[in-house]
Amino acid sequence: MTKKNVLFYLIISSIFINPVAFAEVNLRSVEPPSWWVGMSSQKLQLMLHGDKLANYQVTTSSNSWQIESVETSDNANYLFINLRINDNAKAGNYPLTLRSKDGKAIHTINYSLNQRRKNSANREGFNSSDVIYLITPDRFVNGDYSNDTVASLSEGINREYEGGRYGGDIQGIIDSLDFIESVGYTQIWLNPVLENAQEKYSYHGYSTTDYYQVDERFGSNELYRELSSKAKQKGIGLIKDIILNHIGSGHPWMRDMPNNDWINHGTQFVSTNHRRESLHDPYGTEEDREGMASGWFVPTMPDLNQRNEKLATYLIQNSIWWVEYADLSGIRLDTYPYPDKDFLTRYTREVMAEYPNLNIVGEEWSLNPITVAYWQKGKQRHDNYESYLRSVMDFPLQDAVVKGLKEKESWSDGITKIYQTLATDFVYAHPEELVIFPDNHDMSRIHTQLDHDPKLTKMALAFFATTRGIPQIFYGTEVLMDNPGTDSHGIIRSEFPGGWKDHQASALTGKGLSPDAKSMLEFTRKLFTWRKSNPLIHNGKLTHYAPQDGVYVYFRTRESKAHQSYKQVMVIMNKNDQDTEVKLERFNKMLGNATRATNIISGQDYILKDTIMLPSKTALVLEF
Amino acid sequence: MTKKNVLFYLIISSIFINPVAFAEVNLRSVEPPSWWVGMSSQKLQLMLHGDKLANYQVTTSSNSWQIESVETSDNANYLFINLRINDNAKAGNYPLTLRSKDGKAIHTINYSLNQRRKNSANREGFNSSDVIYLITPDRFVNGDYSNDTVASLSEGINREYEGGRYGGDIQGIIDSLDFIESVGYTQIWLNPVLENAQEKYSYHGYSTTDYYQVDERFGSNELYRELSSKAKQKGIGLIKDIILNHIGSGHPWMRDMPNNDWINHGTQFVSTNHRRESLHDPYGTEEDREGMASGWFVPTMPDLNQRNEKLATYLIQNSIWWVEYADLSGIRLDTYPYPDKDFLTRYTREVMAEYPNLNIVGEEWSLNPITVAYWQKGKQRHDNYESYLRSVMDFPLQDAVVKGLKEKESWSDGITKIYQTLATDFVYAHPEELVIFPDNHDMSRIHTQLDHDPKLTKMALAFFATTRGIPQIFYGTEVLMDNPGTDSHGIIRSEFPGGWKDHQASALTGKGLSPDAKSMLEFTRKLFTWRKSNPLIHNGKLTHYAPQDGVYVYFRTRESKAHQSYKQVMVIMNKNDQDTEVKLERFNKMLGNATRATNIISGQDYILKDTIMLPSKTALVLEF
Repeated sequence: MTKKNVLFYLIISSIFINPVAFAEVNLRSVEPPSWWVGMSSQKLQLMLHGDKLANYQVTTSSNSWQIESVETSDNANYLFINLRINDNAKAGNYPLTLRSKDGKAIHTINYSLNQRRKNSANREGFNSSDVIYLITPDRFVNGDYSNDTVASLSEGINREYEGGRYGGDIQGIIDSLDFIESVGYTQIWLNPVLENAQEKYSYHGYSTTDYYQVDERFGSNELYRELSSKAKQKGIGLIKDIILNHIGSGHPWMRDMPNNDWINHGTQFVSTNHRRESLHDPYGTEEDREGMASGWFVPTMPDLNQRNEKLATYLIQNSIWWVEYADLSGIRLDTYPYPDKDFLTRYTREVMAEYPNLNIVGEEWSLNPITVAYWQKGKQRHDNYESYLRSVMDFPLQDAVVKGLKEKESWSDGITKIYQTLATDFVYAHPEELVIFPDNHDMSRIHTQLDHDPKLTKMALAFFATTRGIPQIFYGTEVLMDNPGTDSHGIIRSEFPGGWKDHQASALTGKGLSPDAKSMLEFTRKLFTWRKSNPLIHNGKLTHYAPQDGVYVYFRTRESKAHQSYKQVMVIMNKNDQDTEVKLERFNKMLGNATRATNIISGQDYILKDTIMLPSKTALVLEF
Repeated sequence: MTKKNVLFYLIISSIFINPVAFAEVNLRSVEPPSWWVGMSSQKLQLMLHGDKLANYQVTTSSNSWQIESVETSDNANYLFINLRINDNAKAGNYPLTLRSKDGKAIHTINYSLNQRRKNSANREGFNSSDVIYLITPDRFVNGDYSNDTVASLSEGINREYEGGRYGGDIQGIIDSLDFIESVGYTQIWLNPVLENAQEKYSYHGYSTTDYYQVDERFGSNELYRELSSKAKQKGIGLIKDIILNHIGSGHPWMRDMPNNDWINHGTQFVSTNHRRESLHDPYGTEEDREGMASGWFVPTMPDLNQRNEKLATYLIQNSIWWVEYADLSGIRLDTYPYPDKDFLTRYTREVMAEYPNLNIVGEEWSLNPITVAYWQKGKQRHDNYESYLRSVMDFPLQDAVVKGLKEKESWSDGITKIYQTLATDFVYAHPEELVIFPDNHDMSRIHTQLDHDPKLTKMALAFFATTRGIPQIFYGTEVLMDNPGTDSHGIIRSEFPGGWKDHQASALTGKGLSPDAKSMLEFTRKLFTWRKSNPLIHNGKLTHYAPQDGVYVYFRTRESKAHQSYKQVMVIMNKNDQDTEVKLERFNKMLGNATRATNIISGQDYILKDTIMLPSKTALVLEF
């Protein structure tokens, strides 16, 4: 049951049970709007928002849960009910009665505790067997033209403006599942789809104005759940992009704050100092840490103060709610180091306690692996900081790959940067859990970063598909989408070809694509379809050789009995402008007795004897 | 007693004791040439080199040591005698008798076991209370013109040639000790002074041809010991530059190899791959590790194979010999990651076992702190590698300082690079033990790196004098020596002004120096003299603030009771081209009630109220 349904139900039930109450209690929201029986934690904290709720007492007539306490804040319009749900509680509607000070029942909430899906707690999160497809929903496919502009949200469609809404939606993604599956993607990460009731730039999604409601221009909570369900039928998981750091300035909290300290600096914009280093700096100051954690990103994104325990609980429950409601396979946490650091420990611990096999990936946009590695679970830290974050976005490797492929080759520059970056992987507790990517929605598209050279873009894709980690591909990469001459985010996030009725070309059908785009799509499809069924690439042992003369060679090989029936994979990256002959003797220990190998893209067989001829700017993926 | 003395003694004693022996045993060397009683390890392995020594048995008539075994190698000219010295053995000459197979005494070596200096084992190594002065002996001061060219060594003086010998020597350093002390230096690190019997480029010192003999063109073992002793009287320690990785091609071993595997690749030049990353790379190959460890630097530097245990023992004993003989305060290990990695564990463990408070600094020329940190003692490593190396050269900070001072200021570039580098110091087990430096003998001089701007060079010096770590300054930096328009090592290591009779200008007397050089010398002298007596700078707590608008501020403050009587130090680095006003409010927590501070260079007092005005390109060091 979604929040709006609960509200409707409350109105009905209030009228029915106690006709007087409706006039007396103006209850605007109960959050979370529903919950489940059989969760790992028995605790549930409901936040009620209405008029002068602090005046009420709360009781329940059910024995299956207990009201442990009722807390008020410094805003009388909010009430926080701390519940404990019995382990053997059955699914159903549970009553909570608001009573006046003299004990008179004024209003009863019938709160839904639902049955969980079978094995919900043990769900498997995304991992290195996956390829994640990152979609900016407004710019991917417009599957429902009726919701392009909706009456209740001020910003309507405007395809003429770079920062405007274009009309892409969840229905469009549902309609494209066959395509997504056909390319070999196994996870979908959507940029945020929760309501952004902002005057402008709402397509972007990072200005949440309702933590429990999908934006109507994208669809509905039900449709989001349908996407998850239909994707799952194809073996595709759904990853939710969650913002713990800030809200949109249009959030109702900004008009009626749950507590004075709910937002850092109240309603006043004070910029964050962006000094992520301060958070682990052995010489750092409280002033700099505070400037990092409490500052705002931009004036339209008020910064949440997660040191308020009720807000912290609200955010944690919200994430768990979405995992359970929409059957998610993971979470991507925006601007990871910006919220309160201790909160991040609690958040990751409590979400992972409910779903021990889930995956959460944090965005720490630093090119310094020391800083990125700091946040990952399992890292031994100088300051004894605890984290339960399984995955981190691998920005250092993204940077190394672009430099590696673009820089003029020398002993210290060029492709050796890729080798050097991986060679210090021991700085990470679990390098194999990193999400790796050629680009994302916040940077120039990889094809532009690589100077619009399709050969280099293919090399990058082949690399990310075959090295350690969990690859993530931004929508449109498979058809060489680019942003020449600009790094405007609105252009980077252009419409996916074929996503709108008026498009001439379509990536979905292949019609009207340029030969280069067609070739790229075919390449991507072969690469990821092959990857999907190759456990060696998912978690086989990685062995690489120091680059020589612009050529970088690595292997993925059997590590366990589970891999015994799979073939070894050899990747040879030749970043030179000219065809290059490589002597194979150096790799004899890895090659063993192998004499033949197959190029997994072309299907062509290679005889492995003495040397191998590599075309210029090519990553050859060979299977033995 | 040096090796040559031992040889002389052998000849005399042979004649005296057994006149026949001299004719029968051609014994060229006994190494180490002497040893000490009362060492922590009872073990001593003597390497004898002569003609067909494998034919002899060895006995001793002393009860104070035992011959545990005598080993031969695959070259009959060498004999290895494994001795165990009793704990209560007294200093004296100990007999070792070489006997023919039928037991006949042919020759007796009277081997010296000397008395150690009092507290020799507990000697304190260089540490953060020190400033190290790095001298290239051939280029510093010529104190003895009689040894500029010597008959026994082929390369004579040639001051016209960049790579030639210029005549600087140990006597010149002894003569300059007053100057060195006056600038505030407390340690001297000399580029290697052992014999380099090479045809050319011998001034450089890194092509050892005798591990137990100072090059005659620099002086003698005795003079080296005199330097150490005279320096010590001034509170100045002596650090020996030791090369474990390679020898010079003129080393006698190249003509008569102690064992076939003594040199990697025998007498054939095979270049190292320089892939230092391979040594810790979780995905690395044995081929790349081998290519790093076994390859040679250049054809004139044969690469030692420390996997030969006898060679390993030879090198370890050699280092201990020099510490004990010359009363050293530390060791600088050249090309640290290039020798066999397991040997480095053994080397550092055994040397540190003899001198638990000594310091050894390794040269790992990488700009990646992850790679540098890998080698330091106390680091927790993914591969359980063990190291007892206390200090590492901080190349990443050197790079950050040059970029920090030169780059155009922006949010991510410029002085923030210094802050960012220190902020990830937790990658090191002991950042306070790192040797930090503006430049060294292998790179452009700092004044050239900073575009010959004396203000920036002073900033760099002030920074290295006041941040964490052990500063090291290359000779001539104090008078702005530079290498404009070239990075020729011969020019970088030019003659120190005043070091030769024909010089017009002298840093030693101050005569003839340019106003900029004079000013720099005065600045350096004040800075390091002040540093010498300021324990806060040695090991006070470092606290720094994220840079704002090109200004970087940090403090060194009391951390322990030992510091209670010392004043707080504040450093403000303004790298802007213009004078800059800095608001002090941000630093209130550190400033406390302080209202006045003194510029330690100018002696000028500052009133600390609201703001402070900073001259352009200046590091203000304020004492409270």
